Amino acid sequence: MARPVLTLLTDFGAQDPYVGIMKGQILGLCPEAQLVDLTHEIAPQDLVTASFHLEQAAPYFPPGTVHLAVVDPGVGSSRAMVAVQTPKATFVAPDNGLLTRALDLMGPVEQMVRLPLPEGASHTFHGRDVMAPAAGRLAAGAPLASLGPSHPTLVRLQFPRPTISENEVEATILALDRFGNVTFDLSKQAAESLFTPGTRWFFQHTEIPVRHTYAEVKLGAPVLLWGSQDLLELALRQGHAASYFQLQSGKRCQLFKKQ
Amino acid sequence: MARPVLTLLTDFGAQDPYVGIMKGQILGLCPEAQLVDLTHEIAPQDLVTASFHLEQAAPYFPPGTVHLAVVDPGVGSSRAMVAVQTPKATFVAPDNGLLTRALDLMGPVEQMVRLPLPEGASHTFHGRDVMAPAAGRLAAGAPLASLGPSHPTLVRLQFPRPTISENEVEATILALDRFGNVTFDLSKQAAESLFTPGTRWFFQHTEIPVRHTYAEVKLGAPVLLWGSQDLLELALRQGHAASYFQLQSGKRCQLFKKQ
Amino acid sequence: MARPVLTLLTDFGAQDPYVGIMKGQILGLCPEAQLVDLTHEIAPQDLVTASFHLEQAAPYFPPGTVHLAVVDPGVGSSRAMVAVQTPKATFVAPDNGLLTRALDLMGPVEQMVRLPLPEGASHTFHGRDVMAPAAGRLAAGAPLASLGPSHPTLVRLQFPRPTISENEVEATILALDRFGNVTFDLSKQAAESLFTPGTRWFFQHTEIPVRHTYAEVKLGAPVLLWGSQDLLELALRQGHAASYFQLQSGKRCQLFKKQ
Repeated sequence: MARPVLTLLTDFGAQDPYVGIMKGQILGLCPEAQLVDLTHEIAPQDLVTASFHLEQAAPYFPPGTVHLAVVDPGVGSSRAMVAVQTPKATFVAPDNGLLTRALDLMGPVEQMVRLPLPEGASHTFHGRDVMAPAAGRLAAGAPLASLGPSHPTLVRLQFPRPTISENEVEATILALDRFGNVTFDLSKQAAESLFTPGTRWFFQHTEIPVRHTYAEVKLGAPVLLWGSQDLLELALRQGHAASYFQLQSGKRCQLFKKQ
Repeated sequence: MARPVLTLLTDFGAQDPYVGIMKGQILGLCPEAQLVDLTHEIAPQDLVTASFHLEQAAPYFPPGTVHLAVVDPGVGSSRAMVAVQTPKATFVAPDNGLLTRALDLMGPVEQMVRLPLPEGASHTFHGRDVMAPAAGRLAAGAPLASLGPSHPTLVRLQFPRPTISENEVEATILALDRFGNVTFDLSKQAAESLFTPGTRWFFQHTEIPVRHTYAEVKLGAPVLLWGSQDLLELALRQGHAASYFQLQSGKRCQLFKKQ
Repeated sequence: MARPVLTLLTDFGAQDPYVGIMKGQILGLCPEAQLVDLTHEIAPQDLVTASFHLEQAAPYFPPGTVHLAVVDPGVGSSRAMVAVQTPKATFVAPDNGLLTRALDLMGPVEQMVRLPLPEGASHTFHGRDVMAPAAGRLAAGAPLASLGPSHPTLVRLQFPRPTISENEVEATILALDRFGNVTFDLSKQAAESLFTPGTRWFFQHTEIPVRHTYAEVKLGAPVLLWGSQDLLELALRQGHAASYFQLQSGKRCQLFKKQ
């Protein structure tokens, strides 16, 4: 049997031993696990970016992968912790909306349980005391139902939707990556016919050509293209579009088309 | 047989290939190893934080785990390198005090050997040439005694101790984490009866309520609680206590109780 | 059979999910892979440093290791992607010079293929769509020839060479590490007889003693020694030579010897 894959996504950073501690807990329960870090550099308690990164990464993992995601501003409150099974993957996370985007993509939800808080659990690190052990047991083959009682419904994050018309688009920045590339919440499916090479789109009074690849514009020039997630991306070839246009994640932006 | 777990903790950072090089050495000797990074972001040559992080993480790993810790300001000097066996885990490190806290917690020491410097070893990277190979051999099942001659005694780091009285506590900051939470060297065991909800403690002329969880105070408000290591923790709910109170690791702090 | 080792080196950073996504692709094809991160903190599109780090790390991995290196400023252009087999290791990378140094060290090249771009591949993330799958297949045992047609020759990065005379050396800085240690492109083999303890070398009007180890000079004092790669290294004991002397990677430097 292939080794079970278990990914981790948190806002714990690389400086503290918290991620290592969760891995220790997991390996005690599932010594064979293939552990993969998605990222631990989510800004503290930034559920929106965490939610997007999990949605981006999850589809590329083998069927049956367990995804453990801990961004947990409500630790110690009455928010639930859950394990959620879909046909393609299993997710363990606090019930705070972190799973919204990934489940919309990877669903439907087949089964969902609430993870009980064991006697003696800490009040500040449920990743270590509850969620990592649950993920470890799932990776080792435990059935979802053995982890806790059925959980009826999940908290959802509300995301703004883009507005799309023939000559104007208003979209939200989902993420800025290390290269300064800017990803909008505008899918190829929804807007491919609008953004085609030859159309004249303007952003911040600058005309930005639509192309297939970065390499089709000059060094330092801006370009619009469909990024690797089939979402609209604004880039500066070998430059840093986010700095150049002074953009932040979550910002609402307008793009205009001239005939 | 379960795969042997081997953790790594260094001050090498993520930018340079040094950690990868040590893993290459280890996998040549123990291809089945489960490698887990505790952290590589210890500030260069900061033995105190390294020592605390190792103590925090080690108890959460399965029995028999090999912990390789390389923070080594004396590399190339005559300081020894050691492998140390306890009933719960084996440690490989320079003999410079890095293991003090972990061994106090995970001891007693059953056996201890000095790792010889092989012919042709570099003068600047004993992690690669001596300690990683030793850790790899131990993970692969080599008996401790096969690695070198017996080593009589270890260098110890001296840590200040907290002073505790009914109405005043003086404690040292062990760590500041990414969330700005501040951990003092004051254990629940030693001071639980003093810090109970309802008691009125002051720090820097601010009254700070004692609670069980962050969620019991308002957003941005300070709180004292027993952290996930059962040590006294000062936090700002969804804020950054270390910045707010301008605190550094190692700082000695006084807390006063009003009747 | 030992588990196949697969290393990853990129300029993707730790913040984005790109590295995790590549690992998901790999594990779908080679569930048994031992994945090792060399570094993902190469400055965006810095082929020179990437090339040096790969050369540094590759020799320390077991025979047959697959090294996946993705620093790819030309993604989407017509640059090729290749898989290259040597007696000691297999490399997967864009054909942009990234492999130059590693192959000079680990060669000779036995076989080389060009990786075709599959239908539907993205225009911006060939690491995910082409190179990670190729590396995964190689780690799972696929023969190199099954991945694509033969590729005749590789792009090479040109590196400046040091000039060496009895009393003067001009060398280039290959890397600055986290400790501020400065590595020059001057090998022990080429210049050992010039830099011996007792010789009087000057850099930036400062006399810098030649020693075997950091510990042979006082705290904060500069020292020249042969580093762990047998290259000339300039360090400040427990200080930061790169900051002190205001040095950058790629800088050409002169050292003078006084009789």
